[in-house]
Amino acid sequence: MPAPLPEPQDAPSTLSVDAEKERAAVALAATAAGIRARGERAGGSAKDVLEAQAFMAEDPTLSDDVKARIGTGKTAERAVFEAFASFRDLLVSMGGYMGERATDLDDVSQRVVAQLQGVEAPGVPDPDHQFVLVARDLAPADTALLNLDKVLGLITSDGGPTSHTAILAREKSIVAVVGAAGALEIANGTTVVVDASTGTITVDPNEDQRFAAKMAIQERASLAKAPAGPGRLADDTEIPLLANLGSAGGAEEAVELGAEGVGLFRTEFLFLDSAQAPTVEEQQAQYSSLFAAFPGKKVVVRALDAGADKPLSFLNDAPEENPALGLRGLRALRANEQILRDQLTAIRNAEAENTADVWVMAPMVSTLEETRYFTSIAREIGLKTAGVMIEVPSSALLADRILVDADFASIGTNDLTQYTLAADRLLGSVASFQDPWHPAVLRLVGEVGKAGAALGKPVGICGEAAADPLLAVVLVGLGATSLSMSPAALADVRAELRLYTIEQAQHFAELALKANSAMEARAAVSASASS
Amino acid sequence: MPAPLPEPQDAPSTLSVDAEKERAAVALAATAAGIRARGERAGGSAKDVLEAQAFMAEDPTLSDDVKARIGTGKTAERAVFEAFASFRDLLVSMGGYMGERATDLDDVSQRVVAQLQGVEAPGVPDPDHQFVLVARDLAPADTALLNLDKVLGLITSDGGPTSHTAILAREKSIVAVVGAAGALEIANGTTVVVDASTGTITVDPNEDQRFAAKMAIQERASLAKAPAGPGRLADDTEIPLLANLGSAGGAEEAVELGAEGVGLFRTEFLFLDSAQAPTVEEQQAQYSSLFAAFPGKKVVVRALDAGADKPLSFLNDAPEENPALGLRGLRALRANEQILRDQLTAIRNAEAENTADVWVMAPMVSTLEETRYFTSIAREIGLKTAGVMIEVPSSALLADRILVDADFASIGTNDLTQYTLAADRLLGSVASFQDPWHPAVLRLVGEVGKAGAALGKPVGICGEAAADPLLAVVLVGLGATSLSMSPAALADVRAELRLYTIEQAQHFAELALKANSAMEARAAVSASASS
Repeated sequence: MPAPLPEPQDAPSTLSVDAEKERAAVALAATAAGIRARGERAGGSAKDVLEAQAFMAEDPTLSDDVKARIGTGKTAERAVFEAFASFRDLLVSMGGYMGERATDLDDVSQRVVAQLQGVEAPGVPDPDHQFVLVARDLAPADTALLNLDKVLGLITSDGGPTSHTAILAREKSIVAVVGAAGALEIANGTTVVVDASTGTITVDPNEDQRFAAKMAIQERASLAKAPAGPGRLADDTEIPLLANLGSAGGAEEAVELGAEGVGLFRTEFLFLDSAQAPTVEEQQAQYSSLFAAFPGKKVVVRALDAGADKPLSFLNDAPEENPALGLRGLRALRANEQILRDQLTAIRNAEAENTADVWVMAPMVSTLEETRYFTSIAREIGLKTAGVMIEVPSSALLADRILVDADFASIGTNDLTQYTLAADRLLGSVASFQDPWHPAVLRLVGEVGKAGAALGKPVGICGEAAADPLLAVVLVGLGATSLSMSPAALADVRAELRLYTIEQAQHFAELALKANSAMEARAAVSASASS
Repeated sequence: MPAPLPEPQDAPSTLSVDAEKERAAVALAATAAGIRARGERAGGSAKDVLEAQAFMAEDPTLSDDVKARIGTGKTAERAVFEAFASFRDLLVSMGGYMGERATDLDDVSQRVVAQLQGVEAPGVPDPDHQFVLVARDLAPADTALLNLDKVLGLITSDGGPTSHTAILAREKSIVAVVGAAGALEIANGTTVVVDASTGTITVDPNEDQRFAAKMAIQERASLAKAPAGPGRLADDTEIPLLANLGSAGGAEEAVELGAEGVGLFRTEFLFLDSAQAPTVEEQQAQYSSLFAAFPGKKVVVRALDAGADKPLSFLNDAPEENPALGLRGLRALRANEQILRDQLTAIRNAEAENTADVWVMAPMVSTLEETRYFTSIAREIGLKTAGVMIEVPSSALLADRILVDADFASIGTNDLTQYTLAADRLLGSVASFQDPWHPAVLRLVGEVGKAGAALGKPVGICGEAAADPLLAVVLVGLGATSLSMSPAALADVRAELRLYTIEQAQHFAELALKANSAMEARAAVSASASS
């Protein structure tokens, strides 16, 4: 990505004060408009992020400060730089959490200066050829804006395997290696081979390496095209393979890739663009179009999962110091029960128009009491199958009680890992903790699996762990009865499951639980699998 | 607390522009000086918070904006109000996490306007008589500044039982009821009886209620003065009762209240006031003065527990979106190993000068690998007894492996509850989840207790749960071999332990584990205890 612009020199302006003020005003307005236009193109949560940036470029306090500095004889570039920097320093001095927004402010400042100087703004480049993008990390807005026709692959130096960048990349089927130390040392124009399945990057490959990479690409393409049967083990134990979807638009591709249904339908997209919650009718139309793509098949819809980390003005946008531990998921819905009731009503109405087997589940459930709250409302509204996401350690530990009430459990391994290890899954400095192979996480999965087996209730996995082929086998050994993942991962997982019996899967699970660390667990199972 | 000032009217100034500018400049400077002076008086972390506020009052961008608004004919009051409000709105628009700092900015704005108008600034009042303070919540800075000779008690409408306000109040032995709904409806000047042990508030007590309150105060005073024997159950099982201390200064009082040693010595106070870590010699002097107060007794020192939530410029002050899940505790020390080595060296040197039985432990340990990292350095430096805090679910789940390496475990129930339920313990909207009676939390405590018993390793409790007399008995039933708490709580816990045998404690533990919720657990054990 283009390097940051150098600091504008503090040389006296050769223009009149009024002329510099005019230049500054035009550049600020043009930058705001440009950022806003990018937001409109991107939509979704990227739009909100960029809207906030546009607002910074239009802020009257900043604009007054720029004018005042121009009044002392500075150029517009220098005045913009100084005004934004002064504001930035104030933010940083106000405490630790300000730093991230300070970065946003720097980004806006750079864009205004670039506008004034007529040079390319920093950010994701848009050259006229295909390329592999190398960056420290991508803001969600940048990832959302990637031109998929041109970006062949993505390498970041920061972020863990379940960071938003990694998840978004997987959802968009972008070949990506995140958290690759030394990535920033790759010079512009270098040829690289990116292998997402092994997480390796080959810089300046030789002829043999290029040939091997081309063969691997062909092999994967033919594997993806192979006729896709249902998910099952070597002993024919059925393990339905389902799709994680973020909008109804992905349904067709999921069916093509052999999804036997939907294990996690995220509904946030319906809510992100509007200042108010969508109406029952608006929601119903969207759910119905999804259900129509899966006649007679299972579709698990997750109730709106938002909070201070994904703030919606009509739900919970109160500031929180630790939004991951805040009023999110079912907690936020409970404080706004009509939104929950409207959503469940829309799902029930859409179900009546289709033949899909519709299940609903609540996000971020921590207690039995919350489970009862959700399932009783769902049943009152007329939904047949109501369950909970298990992504908080307490609900895994109480699964034997929660599954008495809930019809099923679906384990979100990303958040479960985050909370079990108490390590933010989006924070680079603690990324090493975010590994679903950790025996403590697997132990909790096993608790849920045992409770499900004892009570005859299904236990699905809908976190990214299910997309790791060998780990998927371990999860089945721990009691998972279905696996849901990004459709792009279905072929690999399907192939891996067919190699082992349920006894072998259970043996792998025992090996992993006995290990002292995630690394040892992975190594022990890999060794046993290849022996 | 005094109500917020009304918004200054937008009437044209009757003074000259220069005179208003002079008034504004004087008020801003005086406010900054006043805030800074309060910070100096308070010291510690309050000083940092107030220093940041003083900086806001001195910010040149804001001051320029105030002057510009005065230039258009506004009064200094109105100009200050508008300039701070405009900046505040910008902060809020920049995203959810800004809101808290926006409140700081409002506070500064109110103080400047109060200064201009010659009225009392909002905040904790300082009347010339004793009083019970009623507030929504107190900033840590406010709590630190409370005049303990005048504040008879504290009632807040927000915050949970383990919020910082509650913990600080307990540490300073302030009678406090936090999270009391309706507290704000109590009119100024009303007589109230505050009973912290039951969490009840009696508004306008009648004669009988006043008499009962006076008797209860006398009874508690005589209980606290009763000769304090060691902690033990009815069957003479020894459960040493230890003190949680935040500085060497509290040692004398702890000994008077019968502490049999120190179960948690927090060392943050040594680091908070300085721009650099204190030297080995400086630390050694402090540790030595603490150890001298406990000859021949156990003193458990916790290594520096800081991170983005308690930022230290020399440790980790990188901005984090979820500091509770960030690079804190041992994670931050590991990234700055010399600070850890210096601290352990100072502890070992201080141990050599005294007869106290010194143990060291690492905060925020999530994995066996981290355990080995810490204990190997501690042993290399020459410390005999090295253990870990268990406050993350993963380390409780792997206690059977961690206690093979560690010499002991100390369970921090506050953080363990926070992470197990995934609910920020300082956030009012999710305060109901922060209850250490939750069966999932007790289950994890039991896992550690079982591992300790199997391996013959001590398992202490140093979270606030140990200060709840009945819960203390449950914790012993789950396998805790010592309890550490604020010295003020020792008498009540000591008295409660003597009522039950180990078999009864284990029976209580079983009842609590079988319960479906924290409330049911508490009720089941209470019913059994009083039967």
